[in-house]
Amino acid sequence: MFESAELGHSIPKAAYLEREAVLREALLAAQYEMLEQKKFPVIVLIGGVDGAGKGETVNLLNAWMDPRHIITHAFADPSDDELERPRMWRFWRSLPPKGRIGILFGSWYTEPVVARVNGKCKTAEFEHYMQDINHFERMLVDEGAVVLKFWFHLSKKAQHKRLKALEADPKTRWRVSEHEWRRFKHYDEFRVISEIALRETSTGEAPWTIVEGADAHYRYLTVGQVLLDAMRERLANPSPPKPRLAVLPKPALDGRNLFSRLDFSEKMARKTYEAKLEKYQGKLNLLTRDPRFADRSLIVVFEGVDAAGKGGAIRRITSALDARHYTVIPIAAPDEEERAQPYLWRFWRHLPRKGRVTIFDRSWYGRVLVERVEGYCSESEWLRAYAEINDFEEQLTNSNAIVVKFWVTITQEEQLLRFQNREKTPFKAFKLTPDDWRNREKWPDYERAVCDMVERTSTDSAPWVLVPANDKYTARIAILRTLCERLAAAL
Amino acid sequence: MFESAELGHSIPKAAYLEREAVLREALLAAQYEMLEQKKFPVIVLIGGVDGAGKGETVNLLNAWMDPRHIITHAFADPSDDELERPRMWRFWRSLPPKGRIGILFGSWYTEPVVARVNGKCKTAEFEHYMQDINHFERMLVDEGAVVLKFWFHLSKKAQHKRLKALEADPKTRWRVSEHEWRRFKHYDEFRVISEIALRETSTGEAPWTIVEGADAHYRYLTVGQVLLDAMRERLANPSPPKPRLAVLPKPALDGRNLFSRLDFSEKMARKTYEAKLEKYQGKLNLLTRDPRFADRSLIVVFEGVDAAGKGGAIRRITSALDARHYTVIPIAAPDEEERAQPYLWRFWRHLPRKGRVTIFDRSWYGRVLVERVEGYCSESEWLRAYAEINDFEEQLTNSNAIVVKFWVTITQEEQLLRFQNREKTPFKAFKLTPDDWRNREKWPDYERAVCDMVERTSTDSAPWVLVPANDKYTARIAILRTLCERLAAAL
Repeated sequence: MFESAELGHSIPKAAYLEREAVLREALLAAQYEMLEQKKFPVIVLIGGVDGAGKGETVNLLNAWMDPRHIITHAFADPSDDELERPRMWRFWRSLPPKGRIGILFGSWYTEPVVARVNGKCKTAEFEHYMQDINHFERMLVDEGAVVLKFWFHLSKKAQHKRLKALEADPKTRWRVSEHEWRRFKHYDEFRVISEIALRETSTGEAPWTIVEGADAHYRYLTVGQVLLDAMRERLANPSPPKPRLAVLPKPALDGRNLFSRLDFSEKMARKTYEAKLEKYQGKLNLLTRDPRFADRSLIVVFEGVDAAGKGGAIRRITSALDARHYTVIPIAAPDEEERAQPYLWRFWRHLPRKGRVTIFDRSWYGRVLVERVEGYCSESEWLRAYAEINDFEEQLTNSNAIVVKFWVTITQEEQLLRFQNREKTPFKAFKLTPDDWRNREKWPDYERAVCDMVERTSTDSAPWVLVPANDKYTARIAILRTLCERLAAAL
Repeated sequence: MFESAELGHSIPKAAYLEREAVLREALLAAQYEMLEQKKFPVIVLIGGVDGAGKGETVNLLNAWMDPRHIITHAFADPSDDELERPRMWRFWRSLPPKGRIGILFGSWYTEPVVARVNGKCKTAEFEHYMQDINHFERMLVDEGAVVLKFWFHLSKKAQHKRLKALEADPKTRWRVSEHEWRRFKHYDEFRVISEIALRETSTGEAPWTIVEGADAHYRYLTVGQVLLDAMRERLANPSPPKPRLAVLPKPALDGRNLFSRLDFSEKMARKTYEAKLEKYQGKLNLLTRDPRFADRSLIVVFEGVDAAGKGGAIRRITSALDARHYTVIPIAAPDEEERAQPYLWRFWRHLPRKGRVTIFDRSWYGRVLVERVEGYCSESEWLRAYAEINDFEEQLTNSNAIVVKFWVTITQEEQLLRFQNREKTPFKAFKLTPDDWRNREKWPDYERAVCDMVERTSTDSAPWVLVPANDKYTARIAILRTLCERLAAAL
């Protein structure tokens, strides 16, 4: 794989200067055009061996283009904020918005490659990581990002020579420390592992460009040209990437679905409810104060039909918790900043630290519910969302979060009663909007979307809990009891 | 000061239940109305002695109202991200947007009070801190926030009794640790220091409410009622607070101003420029790699007339730096999220970590320049901005940041030439907008605004540097040289 980057590529100075002048002007023009369009971000990943000119190349890209619209991130050891979230959290925080170029040094490849070289990560785990990366990058591309990955390579001999040269020059001596020499000792392992990583993640949508790092002219022009071509291609052809073939979910032939099975008849007396409420709220409180919870976090997702009583159920949970330890995130339409990012970005930003609880009042499932039914997103967007959501939740549970998802539902007749009741009560009238009536008309569409959602995203580690809520007391107790059970099982 | 909170206030259960029912409904209604209006945030600070019911009260507020629209923050020890910024950074990050209620536990009072009790902070420093707090809270109020400060008090005897009671109950035992008893030992010092803090920060716009914590009914109703009254008053009277009396800056009687003195005649030959550019870029590079810089940060502000060459100057700086260590923040109109926060919020969010450089291409000075001249903000808003900006920059320099501010300017004749040149060059035409021509017509207004700005915000630790830039080479070198000098002097 690296052979073609050990050929001694080089470009003489005169030819370089000539091409550079043309290239930088074209890059700048393309950068401004993409800033104008604001339709897609460019994500540039920089990886490779020490001394292969990664830093110089990035500095040059910043010099060629307008550095005000390039966001460069270098990832050192994670901060304590970062350590308390899934490992991709800090990369999500660093994604450039549409219209801008983000250069990520090291990126999500550094950790697994280094861990594998040090023997801190087994083959299976490494393979799994590479798989996760492929999913993540595919999502970025599907969301419209241009993803460019550059691997700066040097042969062992060339790296040795380069490190020696850097060391000999007083101006660059600071760049070669013991750290670099220690890594050089592991050159061969590093090469083998990198090759595996590159091979497994060089996908059609986000391929690696391997850059021979020995000759500065060659590497600068190579990176610049690949970047320019990619920007130009997308600028000329701004339509989103073609949807992959996907099979639309079909309703079962006998017309039965999840809802056929739900029992809406159960009723709970007020007295019983009050006793159980106290019992489960007490339990929940104790569970979240359990010392073992300090290393976990709890993410609760509420979805459900309008007027099903999500808000009331959430209040019964929060009143059992310490206000210092939970946050409720009501999800409405995304704001400007959120619209300039991949769909899941706005949920990533609200992930709790360890020992904390975050309750999402509506959630990332909006994409496969309201956005699907109302046509706010394309078919291919909601179709791929199932897998993206499963990936997302897997990362949450892998990072020690406990994920509990409730679908709170009532019958159509009950909803009508509640709507009418709201209309009559001045204090509640504000809770009823024309949207609610419109959604009601699409009941069958929503029901189908919910069935597909549950079928495709109810996983072992993050199963859906369907809550029939015609009787509010029954529903609230079911929700509290489930939370207690899930927490108790997890701790 | 605390005497009135040691009277043994209490409310019998029956009376409590009656008033509670009315209060919670009214609070909820007021909360929804403010959410609807989205005109102002409510910031609730919670402080006081251990065991006085702070946590329970906040939990109850969350239970009475809709917890989805309340943001509760508890401040533990600062994270490493936070330690690398000015101490107010984490509070800025926690401010609620307009329409929402933010409850801050501990808040900006905890650190100075605890430090003073422990003897880690001298009187003068403490007084200075209180002064800073007053400025900060005044700014919040001026920006439209309702600021409510509650201090939960218990007499020494009452606190002792309460801690013992909490300890005796298995359900609350976890709340009393050695930490609480250690603090109890310092009750008297804590009381004296708190009293000073409260006295000095109980201002007309953000007064303290001292709440006797012994009786739960009493404290709940007191806090709820104060909150309700404040929300209602603002809802009924949504106009911004009346501007304070302020004296408009006057131009000097003889018509001379800062610009009269500037020398636009200097010219630099290309050869000289290239030699100096290399020299100062090299110096700048070395200075930012100096080990002593790892504990500092550099904040560079660029303001100036259109077409003065800010962008070119910025590129000459960035190309001397490592792209991993700097960020350029171009300031345009604020986005949705930023508009829901105090004016300076969007600059706070971009402050660099230690060892890093942030260059602002236009900045917080927009308020006293374009916003003043174009009437985008009220007179009282830009008049108070000078002091707010000075406070802000003082916090930056106190946190070890080096702040360098450039006003880059050209003559009116030179600007006309450059505009015409841009019109003729297809590649540069996009840089010229109708706004530029409009701004040009207001030249005298801008000139006056700049003179006032320099007069009022050029401080010892963050002085303005006026850069005549008719000759680009001269200007760029002057900028690079200034940066090097300021860095060298600071390290």
